[in-house]
Amino acid sequence: MSQPGPDRQSGHVGCSLTLEVTAPSSIVIQIAAARRPAVTISERLEVVNNMVALPAQELTGAAGGRQHLLHVQPGSVTIEYDATITAGPGTPIRVTDEERVAALRPSRYCPSDRLTGMALSHFGEIPTALERVRAICDYVWRHVMYMSESSGPATDAVDTLLSARGVCRDFAHLVTALCRAVEVPARVAAVYAPGLALMDFHCVVEVEVDGHWQVWDATRLAPRPTLVRVATGRDAADIAFTTVTAGRAELRSLGVRAVAPGDLPADDHDRLIALG
Amino acid sequence: MSQPGPDRQSGHVGCSLTLEVTAPSSIVIQIAAARRPAVTISERLEVVNNMVALPAQELTGAAGGRQHLLHVQPGSVTIEYDATITAGPGTPIRVTDEERVAALRPSRYCPSDRLTGMALSHFGEIPTALERVRAICDYVWRHVMYMSESSGPATDAVDTLLSARGVCRDFAHLVTALCRAVEVPARVAAVYAPGLALMDFHCVVEVEVDGHWQVWDATRLAPRPTLVRVATGRDAADIAFTTVTAGRAELRSLGVRAVAPGDLPADDHDRLIALG
Amino acid sequence: MSQPGPDRQSGHVGCSLTLEVTAPSSIVIQIAAARRPAVTISERLEVVNNMVALPAQELTGAAGGRQHLLHVQPGSVTIEYDATITAGPGTPIRVTDEERVAALRPSRYCPSDRLTGMALSHFGEIPTALERVRAICDYVWRHVMYMSESSGPATDAVDTLLSARGVCRDFAHLVTALCRAVEVPARVAAVYAPGLALMDFHCVVEVEVDGHWQVWDATRLAPRPTLVRVATGRDAADIAFTTVTAGRAELRSLGVRAVAPGDLPADDHDRLIALG
Amino acid sequence: MSQPGPDRQSGHVGCSLTLEVTAPSSIVIQIAAARRPAVTISERLEVVNNMVALPAQELTGAAGGRQHLLHVQPGSVTIEYDATITAGPGTPIRVTDEERVAALRPSRYCPSDRLTGMALSHFGEIPTALERVRAICDYVWRHVMYMSESSGPATDAVDTLLSARGVCRDFAHLVTALCRAVEVPARVAAVYAPGLALMDFHCVVEVEVDGHWQVWDATRLAPRPTLVRVATGRDAADIAFTTVTAGRAELRSLGVRAVAPGDLPADDHDRLIALG
Repeated sequence: MSQPGPDRQSGHVGCSLTLEVTAPSSIVIQIAAARRPAVTISERLEVVNNMVALPAQELTGAAGGRQHLLHVQPGSVTIEYDATITAGPGTPIRVTDEERVAALRPSRYCPSDRLTGMALSHFGEIPTALERVRAICDYVWRHVMYMSESSGPATDAVDTLLSARGVCRDFAHLVTALCRAVEVPARVAAVYAPGLALMDFHCVVEVEVDGHWQVWDATRLAPRPTLVRVATGRDAADIAFTTVTAGRAELRSLGVRAVAPGDLPADDHDRLIALG
Repeated sequence: MSQPGPDRQSGHVGCSLTLEVTAPSSIVIQIAAARRPAVTISERLEVVNNMVALPAQELTGAAGGRQHLLHVQPGSVTIEYDATITAGPGTPIRVTDEERVAALRPSRYCPSDRLTGMALSHFGEIPTALERVRAICDYVWRHVMYMSESSGPATDAVDTLLSARGVCRDFAHLVTALCRAVEVPARVAAVYAPGLALMDFHCVVEVEVDGHWQVWDATRLAPRPTLVRVATGRDAADIAFTTVTAGRAELRSLGVRAVAPGDLPADDHDRLIALG
Repeated sequence: MSQPGPDRQSGHVGCSLTLEVTAPSSIVIQIAAARRPAVTISERLEVVNNMVALPAQELTGAAGGRQHLLHVQPGSVTIEYDATITAGPGTPIRVTDEERVAALRPSRYCPSDRLTGMALSHFGEIPTALERVRAICDYVWRHVMYMSESSGPATDAVDTLLSARGVCRDFAHLVTALCRAVEVPARVAAVYAPGLALMDFHCVVEVEVDGHWQVWDATRLAPRPTLVRVATGRDAADIAFTTVTAGRAELRSLGVRAVAPGDLPADDHDRLIALG
Repeated sequence: MSQPGPDRQSGHVGCSLTLEVTAPSSIVIQIAAARRPAVTISERLEVVNNMVALPAQELTGAAGGRQHLLHVQPGSVTIEYDATITAGPGTPIRVTDEERVAALRPSRYCPSDRLTGMALSHFGEIPTALERVRAICDYVWRHVMYMSESSGPATDAVDTLLSARGVCRDFAHLVTALCRAVEVPARVAAVYAPGLALMDFHCVVEVEVDGHWQVWDATRLAPRPTLVRVATGRDAADIAFTTVTAGRAELRSLGVRAVAPGDLPADDHDRLIALG
């Protein structure tokens, strides 16, 4: 019986960002792997503003997520993040009452209250939450086409339902909104996704099934077992990798890295998988 | 061989309206049966404003429709319309090039350009226009619930798709928008509908099939062969039975009458039927 | 020098709710006064489901708010809440970094990203945050008409901007969305409002001015100094007084009580006031 | 006393279009100067599909406009239009009852019924139609920024109000929607616009003032007296210079030409001017 070696147990994720800042600005970044009970993170975060290393203030986010707040001066900002992730077996996490209540509310990009009628007429008769989620993910997978640059920052789940095209966040928003509309608590997560065809930050959905959070991805673009959670929230408004909260800054370049421990696992996109 | 008697050949339609007017107003009413080649109309229109008979100026509308323009003083307005309609066999009417172009454009309540993606993903693969129309009418019939007072004057086809409920105009708007989105010219018609369960003005769809206008009704609430056309247009903005174009007036009561010549015909809501 | 007597120091707030439940349901209520550093609360919460007293599970909310989770059986539910509030001087509360980031994000009913252009063109040139907030509250006060039942649960700030009418939550949503769009952190609060003309739950806005939360009310319907905070959140999705998270229940009656300690204070609706 | 010579009396307008067609298609073009009582047009229209000259079927449009219907095969289509326009003095045209009724209805891109409240709260107190129109044009001019490529084909007047940016059609849609909302009949016109900074097709508004159509342009990008009317309609859905009604075709290049007779006239963008 061979033991898996250390190379197979540890995944490597990271990213490189460059921003152009044109006014003194406050920027929140969400790029660090979330702290989770079964996950060990060895990481490095470096922020340089006009050749000077800058401290990043860590704020607490949902589900172990961490936001880093930067106060930067006009000029260039480069951000480097690298982490080695050693994860134990992905054990499902219990949904708290507070989380359940929040995950049923409509949100900016998942206005579940606007499409309740459509959701009920298509999925309302399906008896169990699990079957409803499967039917919703299947519907979105069949009817929405993945197309780069087919949506913008203001695109919401209704827009995606109507245009029938989008990127990962649009798939996640539509699945989330439809789930909430049929009383299945749902939230989104930004993740590193080893195996993603065009490497980038990825966005998936977590829904409550039998009291635990389970992850779904209607894009089917990366296997779910090796996803690495970064940020968790109601929708893209909560989990953007950069948010300028004051001042003015623009993203100039972005590179994302994600390598799984060992071979990429298979994923039939149908069974229950928990996001670490 | 018995000949059908006169009672069986002539339908009777009409309506009674009362408006309360609180400022000198201009009101357009569309309640008279449209003039059509194969239709003979014997009618009476009476407008009384504060006990005084008022002339109604007839304006020309699309597809033989007639608008009546009233200039009224504050107080009460009562309108009585009655017509005996003798219709020949319902022969399909050719679609003109001008009509086809107009019937493909998005309109206020049928914003076909907003739901093109959804329409193509659901109905775009169906080869013929006729089959696409049938699939669309069937989809709307199955997924939208008829419910009185479930929509308002600003409700459009997207709202109806999302809420999955509506009244006859909402069914007509959604069918029309979906048809246009898959390149089937479509327009709406206000009609008298003998046999309608709760008698009222009714609203149906005309689409082009093989060069001719054919009528569809996804509510399935009245047989199509005995419908009597009143007004024809892009959507409800064009065919409202009353529009206040200046001043201020409110509808106080409405009664609609529609009796078919002879027994009500059967309608499987699937075959081709032309609106006279 | 006379000391204010106990009658003048303590306010009294409370409410009575009746719900009709038609399926086993989970209901979240937010009706209890928030726990705040300078506030002493003496309270009583009674829930009765079909004549049987029911325990209410307390969940933690933002800014000292408390949600109560009820699991109820079909039949009737009556809820009685009464509290005596003794508040110290209303000292402004510091805005944390986490709160600031969240209060700048667009939300379901305050889609600030959709009206950024309009907000900047009307208020973007105003130099300080305080002056921008005053101009926004003044604009909403002048252009939006308070009208009962003029909006519904799906109405958002854009709808209110367009319809120019609404109730307290609509005023709060529009002010909040406009503030966020010009980079002023803003959130909403449900409050008991002594002096409110038609007594009901009330909804106001908190914005960051010079690092502290300050309260604004563009309806001008109740003085701000005697408001009692209940729930705090991004918009009405977070602070509804009842949310059915599973099952089916409908509100049958609601009575709200709010009496200030002593005479109602004056409020020019322009100066800085902190919500306790 | 010198008479103006022929060079000063005749304007020259025209355009060159190239389309790439990938399926047998029907295309409607609206590029020819409208036939008007006081206007003499000497013109040439050439359509070439894969090196073969193609006939263009002329359809009748509103206000003397002409649509040309083309049935084309896959490959390239080039369209050349040139016209010499000799216009008499621009005498205002009477508004017919049918036109007035149609120009008060909401339309796809001018959903006046959605912003009635906002329009009334900003402009409803202004006594005369002319003053309301001036106030609306001034509001749009001050609050909306002209920005190329800031809108798309689905952008409507509400989107423009919110984003506060747009191109000529967006300015025209917002003015039109606001006018209709305060009971001023309004429609849009596509025009050739001598003097337009970046030469292109231009879009302006016609509103009824004292029974006649008068032209307004809240972009202020070209003088109104030398505009040449092409197409007239409810909004951009009616006046697009190309519409593919069946098949698939994409615009590859567009060049527009417009030269005024003589020097460009001054325009204060405030007085009454009729569009020929």
